[in-house]
Amino acid sequence: MTKVTVLGAGAMGSAICNPLVKAGWDVHLWGTWLDDHLIDAIDAGEPHPRTNAIISSEVTTYRSDDLEQALEGANVVILAVASVGVPKVTEMALGGMSKADAVWLTSKGFNPDPDGKIELLPAALRRIAKNNGYTLPPIVAVAGPVKANECATGEPTATIFGCSDLSVAQKYAREATTSRYRIEASDDEVGVEICAPMKNVYAISLGIADGLEEATGFPHHNLKAATFAQAVKEMSVLGQALGAKPETAFGLAGVGDLEVTGLSGRNKVYGVRLGRGEAPAEALAEMERLEQTVEGVPAAGYAKDLVSQLGVTEEQVPLFFAVSRILDGGIDDVKEEVAEAVLPRH
Amino acid sequence: MTKVTVLGAGAMGSAICNPLVKAGWDVHLWGTWLDDHLIDAIDAGEPHPRTNAIISSEVTTYRSDDLEQALEGANVVILAVASVGVPKVTEMALGGMSKADAVWLTSKGFNPDPDGKIELLPAALRRIAKNNGYTLPPIVAVAGPVKANECATGEPTATIFGCSDLSVAQKYAREATTSRYRIEASDDEVGVEICAPMKNVYAISLGIADGLEEATGFPHHNLKAATFAQAVKEMSVLGQALGAKPETAFGLAGVGDLEVTGLSGRNKVYGVRLGRGEAPAEALAEMERLEQTVEGVPAAGYAKDLVSQLGVTEEQVPLFFAVSRILDGGIDDVKEEVAEAVLPRH
Repeated sequence: MTKVTVLGAGAMGSAICNPLVKAGWDVHLWGTWLDDHLIDAIDAGEPHPRTNAIISSEVTTYRSDDLEQALEGANVVILAVASVGVPKVTEMALGGMSKADAVWLTSKGFNPDPDGKIELLPAALRRIAKNNGYTLPPIVAVAGPVKANECATGEPTATIFGCSDLSVAQKYAREATTSRYRIEASDDEVGVEICAPMKNVYAISLGIADGLEEATGFPHHNLKAATFAQAVKEMSVLGQALGAKPETAFGLAGVGDLEVTGLSGRNKVYGVRLGRGEAPAEALAEMERLEQTVEGVPAAGYAKDLVSQLGVTEEQVPLFFAVSRILDGGIDDVKEEVAEAVLPRH
Repeated sequence: MTKVTVLGAGAMGSAICNPLVKAGWDVHLWGTWLDDHLIDAIDAGEPHPRTNAIISSEVTTYRSDDLEQALEGANVVILAVASVGVPKVTEMALGGMSKADAVWLTSKGFNPDPDGKIELLPAALRRIAKNNGYTLPPIVAVAGPVKANECATGEPTATIFGCSDLSVAQKYAREATTSRYRIEASDDEVGVEICAPMKNVYAISLGIADGLEEATGFPHHNLKAATFAQAVKEMSVLGQALGAKPETAFGLAGVGDLEVTGLSGRNKVYGVRLGRGEAPAEALAEMERLEQTVEGVPAAGYAKDLVSQLGVTEEQVPLFFAVSRILDGGIDDVKEEVAEAVLPRH
């Protein structure tokens, strides 16, 4: 029986436990020092506070002090903490990770290395391991259009596993699949990984079209659709600049995940506020007051540095540059800014 | 000054007049024998009955009896009638079309030839011309995520012109563009053309996920996103079977148009009914009673024949086969049917 240890008991970490139990795996879930109340709920058989889903009683839970015990003999370690926690938790878990057959990564985002260079998370993991004298097994980037609550409650869910060793992605795609949690295997770790934070950035731009409709009473469907198509194209361009395959953005990781993120969720809601005419900083402060995290905002900041590092130009990713300028404030007419970025040019 | 004659005064035919006037063209609009009330409204400066948009007073209008006069000296003829009217209006207009520099086609759909073989509309036009001893100039397939009302009222709109002679597409993309109506030029006439009717079929499948949410109270976002990604993939596969480029479906013609059609519009609404558990025939009858045409239903029927002609298999386009079966009735569990079609398999 495959033993899997999930690090992080938040929405996605807890959710992925359920299909893995169904697939017949021996599932262990470790909560960070911030997760005690989440582990409490799971242990009590109560709905998870973030997803409202019941997590299988067959999952063995661990508190933050019991990391070593949680990792003991794990064949697979899944890193599922918030992206800001990735470096610290990785350092803490290197012993267990290095002994596993694979590390899966549901955490998503960018990470600035100590020199301020922006890395994707798999690169961060490998760097941290190397600096500490460890070698990691293959990393599997887990992404796609997966709302955690639906994954946990067993609604039909398609995900993509990206690993540079395709046979590893395929092995787990076979072994972890259930009738409702189904996995596409890909050899494009980078392509899968770049789409996840970028779709949060682009979701803001999709919200803007909805906000314009709210503000004016007139739909902006054509603008929104052109924005969607441009966002997909730019995720492909950014992926290619990092060595990814062009087509990964056209599948579950890009098109699929943008559909679900861009049409609901907090990044889109933030965009709606901008489209309605709210100032970026005030709108963000208001959402923070409501405890609504807008992941696309910090992601856009990191992405700006990454784009600069890669030498990607505004001509290649005009929508990204437009969103960046809008988030920085100082753009009065967001409609024109987005329209100029997404409409075809000659 | 380029003289353009638009054939068909419905939503799209009338709408495209406005940007063309803005681009400085000499615009003539001919209404079919069914369009008298539409021409009346335009002549009176009243909102167009289908789009609620005012059509520019600089457009010269013609009634059905004045076709010859309307076509006199036209540099470009735009065929914009409903797809069922395409063969007849084409026959009537061959004289003018053959003398023009180009025929644009905003009409979309499939056409059964006299032997029952399914053609895309450009092929139908060429066949009809040939049978009548005419040769047509280059055909420009006009598509993409364009809601007619927004096009007419000057909201930001991106469209794609596909012509096998790229220089022709580029020429018109330059000459017809305005600040708000912007045109991507493509050499993939077939790729642009196949997406338009197929997105209506796939929009039904996207509505099903929404209907499941209405029926159960639980969102099916993951299923919907996986359906969206699979639909895009299948439009690319079908395009390739017809000789189109794989990537056309990943741009404005596929991803973009599916976004706008799949998230609103009547095909989606029909899908919602199916997802709620209504029987296909009854749901369709009810929508017909409400005068809501569901274009995806006849398109699916023609597409079934086309898929068979091309030898495209269920393994290649499982979602299309699933939608076909659902439309034919006899599928009790539409959720399982769609899920099995769109979730990854091994």
